[in-house]
Parts: sequence; structure tokens; C-alpha cells
Amino acid sequence: MIPKLSPIGDKIFHHHPDQSLLSTNDDTQDYKTFYYRQTLDHFNYRPESYTRFSQRYLINFKYWGGANSSAPIFVYLGEEAPIDGDLEVIGFLTDNAPSFNALIVYIEHRFYGESVPLGSFDEALKNAETRGYFNSAQAIADYAAVIRHLKKTLNAQKSPVIVIGGSYGGMLASWFRLKYPHMAIGALASSAPILYFDRITPSNGYYSVVTKDFREASESCYETILKSWSEIDRVASEADGLSILSQRFNTCRPLNKSSELKDYLDSLYASAAQYNQPPRYPVSVICGGIDGASFGSDILTKIYSGLVALKGNATCKVNQPLNQTQTDKGWRWQTCSEMVIPIGRGNETMFPADPFHIKSFVKECKKIYGVSPRPHWVTTYYGGHDIKLVLQKFGSNIIFSNGLRDPYSSGGVLDNISDSIVAVRTVNGSHCLDILRSSASDPEWLIKQREEEIKIIKGWISQYYADLAALKVS
Amino acid sequence: MIPKLSPIGDKIFHHHPDQSLLSTNDDTQDYKTFYYRQTLDHFNYRPESYTRFSQRYLINFKYWGGANSSAPIFVYLGEEAPIDGDLEVIGFLTDNAPSFNALIVYIEHRFYGESVPLGSFDEALKNAETRGYFNSAQAIADYAAVIRHLKKTLNAQKSPVIVIGGSYGGMLASWFRLKYPHMAIGALASSAPILYFDRITPSNGYYSVVTKDFREASESCYETILKSWSEIDRVASEADGLSILSQRFNTCRPLNKSSELKDYLDSLYASAAQYNQPPRYPVSVICGGIDGASFGSDILTKIYSGLVALKGNATCKVNQPLNQTQTDKGWRWQTCSEMVIPIGRGNETMFPADPFHIKSFVKECKKIYGVSPRPHWVTTYYGGHDIKLVLQKFGSNIIFSNGLRDPYSSGGVLDNISDSIVAVRTVNGSHCLDILRSSASDPEWLIKQREEEIKIIKGWISQYYADLAALKVS
Repeated sequence: MIPKLSPIGDKIFHHHPDQSLLSTNDDTQDYKTFYYRQTLDHFNYRPESYTRFSQRYLINFKYWGGANSSAPIFVYLGEEAPIDGDLEVIGFLTDNAPSFNALIVYIEHRFYGESVPLGSFDEALKNAETRGYFNSAQAIADYAAVIRHLKKTLNAQKSPVIVIGGSYGGMLASWFRLKYPHMAIGALASSAPILYFDRITPSNGYYSVVTKDFREASESCYETILKSWSEIDRVASEADGLSILSQRFNTCRPLNKSSELKDYLDSLYASAAQYNQPPRYPVSVICGGIDGASFGSDILTKIYSGLVALKGNATCKVNQPLNQTQTDKGWRWQTCSEMVIPIGRGNETMFPADPFHIKSFVKECKKIYGVSPRPHWVTTYYGGHDIKLVLQKFGSNIIFSNGLRDPYSSGGVLDNISDSIVAVRTVNGSHCLDILRSSASDPEWLIKQREEEIKIIKGWISQYYADLAALKVS
Repeated sequence: MIPKLSPIGDKIFHHHPDQSLLSTNDDTQDYKTFYYRQTLDHFNYRPESYTRFSQRYLINFKYWGGANSSAPIFVYLGEEAPIDGDLEVIGFLTDNAPSFNALIVYIEHRFYGESVPLGSFDEALKNAETRGYFNSAQAIADYAAVIRHLKKTLNAQKSPVIVIGGSYGGMLASWFRLKYPHMAIGALASSAPILYFDRITPSNGYYSVVTKDFREASESCYETILKSWSEIDRVASEADGLSILSQRFNTCRPLNKSSELKDYLDSLYASAAQYNQPPRYPVSVICGGIDGASFGSDILTKIYSGLVALKGNATCKVNQPLNQTQTDKGWRWQTCSEMVIPIGRGNETMFPADPFHIKSFVKECKKIYGVSPRPHWVTTYYGGHDIKLVLQKFGSNIIFSNGLRDPYSSGGVLDNISDSIVAVRTVNGSHCLDILRSSASDPEWLIKQREEEIKIIKGWISQYYADLAALKVS
């Protein structure tokens, strides 16, 4: 899954990378499914807080060295999606469990997949009472409760736990290590934009990186896209302009306004940049299409060629009937309440300027959900400001991994904070690339990144065993 | 205040030390009172969660060096009582603010004093909906919100904050440093029994220390008390026995059962041990009375002499009409929901055996409040098990101070965890002694303890300024 953290307003953001491009795991039959009777509200003692719901988690026992040898436990912390997709494409745990003799656990995030409290997903999300319980603090408390239960059930109190997550799940992993150090000895936080809150990161960070990615791929491609927006508007403003655009972009339904097309292209480029991964590198594919359009083509033809190059032209793409996923709906609520990630577009990008305005954002969210977002809560609860000053002598054992071509890397931790809170970054990497399943076609820099992460995690575990032995003796 | 963390079942536990024995602050006029519009539920986004209530805090600006010089801020985190009492007896902040040029802030704990959400204290506590919001996780989130607000309002983002608390408030201080390291650079946690949860500390720890205190004061005193319980039962079982006991102990009302007397004495001894502070040392006073009863006195005469020695005989003491304070009522709820501190009496104490049974405790709480306690939650959220293993390489800047004569020290951190998570203990100290106002009669060991704490805190602040300067340069 590795969903994009889509900013509100991106009405048609297709944030799933093309699954057909990813190496998938063929070992899903090694997983057993369990359900934990989870507490609805960990931070309240109202009678309703005690309501229980079934939280899904899956375990692969195949590689585990067992509790007697205090063999490690890898726990994947689910993000804003059903856990099934993670099981398919997240390879880091399965690829490395054998050499660690590790147990593998995937835990689904509350409100997604089968882990929905109080009715169906749509019911739960429609109910203003129920969706109040849908937030990150509750989610990581869930993870703590499941891990506690697991360790107890498996009699594995001494087994070191490593938590792993990507994107929003990567934020959860790093926050989990900070808030629950007694539950996990370390965290791998892949592409976690924990600094994309409360004005720590400039709001145009995301689209600046998208722009840079395209410009680095091709200056002329970048120029074409830059000019395309006003060209779309110009054509749209003509008599019958929207029909012309609908025809030229082979839209699934006639366009009602030019923003439908522009939003689609915005999402296409952003998604390509975010998931600009080997072996195909979607940004290069799009730019190949744009730059490769036959000599003398006009701007819109070039743009359409870029689209076709990536997506093919067998079926229509633009203005497809909207079929919102749990991720679309759930993440919108999350960003409209707690996860206020201020993504805007400044003047310096290849996109039309569209700055983030907190006031109109708050207003829109309030209109949809009846309650206001809390834009300062993430930094109040988890921190973020002056992160080096705060964490260089506090905390340990977190890897923040980023690919610098991932637009979200603009809100990531890109420099080491201390000896053991470290940044592992690749110049060419994309969103969550390191935790995907390894493949024969992986480039050398990606192999190296994963090796570095594994070496660091091995170091944590060795240190943990040494500390454990020293404390037993003393 | 420094209230005793009274175990449920101690119906008549008088847990306030005799205020007349304490040096009180005469500078309460230096404090300005403020109210913060606090969020009712930080961890939920139901419409009700957004309800605001007024949280009281007080500031003394007199000694502050100001925001421009990034002068420190001392924040006292209120415990289970109105903040007024703390202002009177907690001296650590005022005594040391001048040499630190520190701002002093006292914040009241939600639901106590003037910081009660949704109606009067009794209304709030009677309402099963409202009291659900009454817990430690919400309380420390309140503190984070107030500190954030303060720093912003005072433009003091770079001022280092030191949080200070005693007893339950000491637990909150240490947990605050662990959960909100971005809000406070260090914590002084006085007499904080953070390990008295979930069977980390044996349940008879508290009464074992009470017993040790009396035995060290006087072996014969200890023997007398040890024998007194069966003697009380023996007399009570006689015809007219309760009248005899009522007369001999000058009870305020006739005793209905011997447990009323025994509970009173239990509380008397426990409280004396907990607050066994100079210059009077209540344990020695009681034992002086017991041992000093005229030659040939029987056991009950001796016991009554001990009582009179401490409390005088001008008015009746035993079986006074109950006048429950906010602390009594509030703390009972807290212990019956979240703060499950399993205090029992084993066979090795000078008290009748009365082991802690979690099942009957849960049952009793459920009967009173309709919901069950969550005895594993504190260790799930805050940790505690294997604390050295967990924290020796995670976290920094916490002082756990304890007096070993304080029964709660049995659940405290008594050994250094790391270079900067340290234990400062005194052999003769009692509950929260170090944070009380200093006095000319303070013994040398107490002066030394406070000096050590101040030296450590000065070190944190110097280090912080050095780090701040280094980061500015780089």
C-alpha cells in the first residue's frame, strides 16, 4: 500500500503506486491471523471507553528462534490502510527475519481493514462519536497493548522488539520508540515526515521536491509542465474548451471544469515523484513521453503523451468515476483532525501557486466533520521543533530512512541526531523504497541502504543482549 | 499537601502531615493567578472532547531573568490536591529560583481545586461520563499544553523548563520528562513510587518500611504495637468490649467495630512513618509515648500514650466524623481506575496480615464506580518493568529523590539508572522532604541532599545552554 499522505483538496489523488510494478511476497500462507480484544479508549475511563473491538494482527512463526533464546520480534505497525496490502509488498521483515531468527508480526491500524470498532468502516467514520477514537495516540497505544499481550502469551518478555513502519506508519514507528521505549528497543521509520507539522517544514516542501525531480529528469519536460497549466486554462476558457480538453485527454467523463484535469495531472506528477522507483522510474517515463512527442507537438499533446507513456491508452484515466478507498476516507479524517500536514504550492514549483492557508483548512474540515483540527497537537504530543536540541541527549535507536527524491523527505529527518538516532538517506530513493521486498533488479545504492539499516539494527540487538547479560550478572 | 497515596480500604486515612509542623511560604502574594482554557480530552476528537475548562496556574515573576536571556522556568506539577496547599509548603522552587533567575509556575491538576471541568468537584466525580477524563495521561497532556502556551506567550521558547513534583506529582514529573522531553529538559521527581505498580514492587513494601521505621526507633515500641492488634480484638470480643475500647481511646463516637480503632492506628503509624520528618520525627514521638507510659501499664494504655504523645489529648481523635477532602475522593477514583498501587500487609510487618488481592480490589472498584480498574495500564503506558535495561540508554535528566524512611521509597527508583537518570537518597529522609521549604533546623543530610539536587539541575541547564549555543553556531 504505502499510501501517499494526501493533502486535503486533492480530490482525485490516486495515491497507490501501481501494484503491478512491485515485487510481491509469495509467503502470505506463512501468516496466521489473530484478533486482539482492543480497548476503544486508552486515555479515558468513561463506561464507553471500555468498549472492545477486534484488532487484527498476523504472525509468521517460521523463522523465529523462540522465547528461550530471546530471539527478536519484528513488528510492522500498520498505517492508514488494511494490513493485507502491507503483507504483500512490505518485504523488509520477511527478507531479513531468517538472518535474525525473528518472529514477524503485522498489526493493523485501528479503523482500517478488519480492525474497525463499532460497525462497518463507513458507519464508524460517519459517526461523530465513533471517529473521535480514530487517531494516532490511540493507535500506538493499541500497538503497545498488542505487543504486551504477545510477549506475555509467547512468554517472550526478554525478546527485543523492533518496530517498522513506512510513511505515516513510519511516523508511528518513531513515535512508538519515543513514547514506549519499554515496548520496543528500536524503530525503523521509513519515509516518515515527522517534521511536516506546525510550520517546522515550509509548506511548499513537498511540491518543491516534485518539481526538482522532474527538472532533474529533464529540463524541457519541466518547462512543458510549467507552461501547461495556463495552456489548459486558456483552452478551457474558449468556447467549447472543456469538450476539446475532454477529447484531447480522452477523459472518462466530460470535464465540468478544468481543475478536474489539473488536479488529475497534479496527482499524477506527485505520485510519480513519490514512487519514482526502480526499475521503471515513473518520472523518467512521463518525461520520456513528454519530451518524445513528435516534433512540433503542442503543449497539450506533449502532456497527454506523458500520461500515456506512464498509464497506457487502452482505457481512459482522467476523470474516472471516484471510488474512494478506506485510505482516502480514513486519511482525510485523520488529516482533518490530528495529522495536519500543511502541504501547499508556492511560486517556486512547476505547479500553479496554491498556498496552504490554515484558516481555510480549518474551516473546510469543520464544515465536513463538525470539529476543528488541532494543528499544534502533533508537536505538543510528539515534539518536532528543535529536534536535534531535544533528542541529541534523549532517546536512542531510531533509523529515519529517506530517499531524497521522495517529496515527503522534505519533512523527514535527514541528518543524524545522535549516535543512535540516525538518518539513512539515498540521493535517488523514493517513498518507502527500503522496506519494499528486495528484487534482483534493485540498484546498488538501494542494496547498500538496506544493508546499512540491517547493520544498525543488528548493533542494537547485540547491545541489548549484552546489557541484558550484564544486568543478570550484576 | 503532599498527600499520601492512600490505598483503598483505608477508610479513615488522614494523609496530610500536620501543617503546623511545616515551614510555610510567606510569599504567596508574589504569585499571580491565571487560567488556561484547557482541552477536556487530548486523545479524542468527539465533539465533547473539545469542551474547554479553566485550569488554574500561578506564576511568580519576581526572580526571572527573562526570555531574552533564556532564563529557566521551574514548573511545579500539581498532584491530587488543590494547588493552594503546595504553594504554601513546597519550598524548593522559591528557595532556589533566585540563584537560577528562574520563573516559578505552579499548575493545578485537573479535577482538583479550581480546575474542575463540568461543574463542582462532587458533581464531576459523581458523573460516570465526566470522571472518565480524570487521569494521569490527560493531566500531563494538560501540563504540556500549559507549558507550550506559556513559552509562546512569554516568547520564552528557548528557556529551559525543569518540572518538579512530589509523590504522585513526582511520578507525573518523571513521566512528563519521559513523554514530553521537548517540553522540559529535566525533572525532579521527589518520593515518586513509579515502581509500585503491576507487581514490580512486592505489595507489602509500604508496610515493611513502616515497620522498619518503628523497629529502628524502638524495639520495645515495635513489640508493643505488634501485640496490640490481638489485644484490641480480645477486648472487643468481651461483653461491653467496644465501650471499654471507646472509653480507653477517648473516641469521638462510640466504636461500632474494633476495625475502626485499628484502621485509625494503622493510618496513624503509616502517616507518622511517611512524614517522619525533622525536627519532630513523629515516629520517635509515638514510640516515646508508648515506651514512656508509666511502669506496668498494659498494652492499650501504652498505645494510647503513643497516640496522645503525637496528637495531644485536648480533643478526641479516634472515630472522628468523616469529612472527606477532594484528595480523599479524587485519589480514590484515581486508584480505582488507573493508579492501581497494590499495597497490602504481609506476615512480616507489625500489622495484622491483610494481603492485597487484585480480584477483590477490582470487584470493589467496579461496585463503586461501575468500571473496572486497569491494573496493567500504567506499566503499559509509562513502563516500569526492567527499568534499568530500558532506560540506561534511553532518556536523560531525571532525579529520583527518596528518603529511605518513607514507606513509598519501597516503590521508588533508589539506584542510578544512567549518568543522568539518577537516584538521590537519604537514609533518614521521609516523604517529599527535599522539596519542602528549607528551615534553619534542617539537618545536615537534608541540606546536602538539596545541594546535590541543585548541582545536578545546574549541570543540566549549563549543558542545555552549551548545546543551544553549539547548534546556533553550526
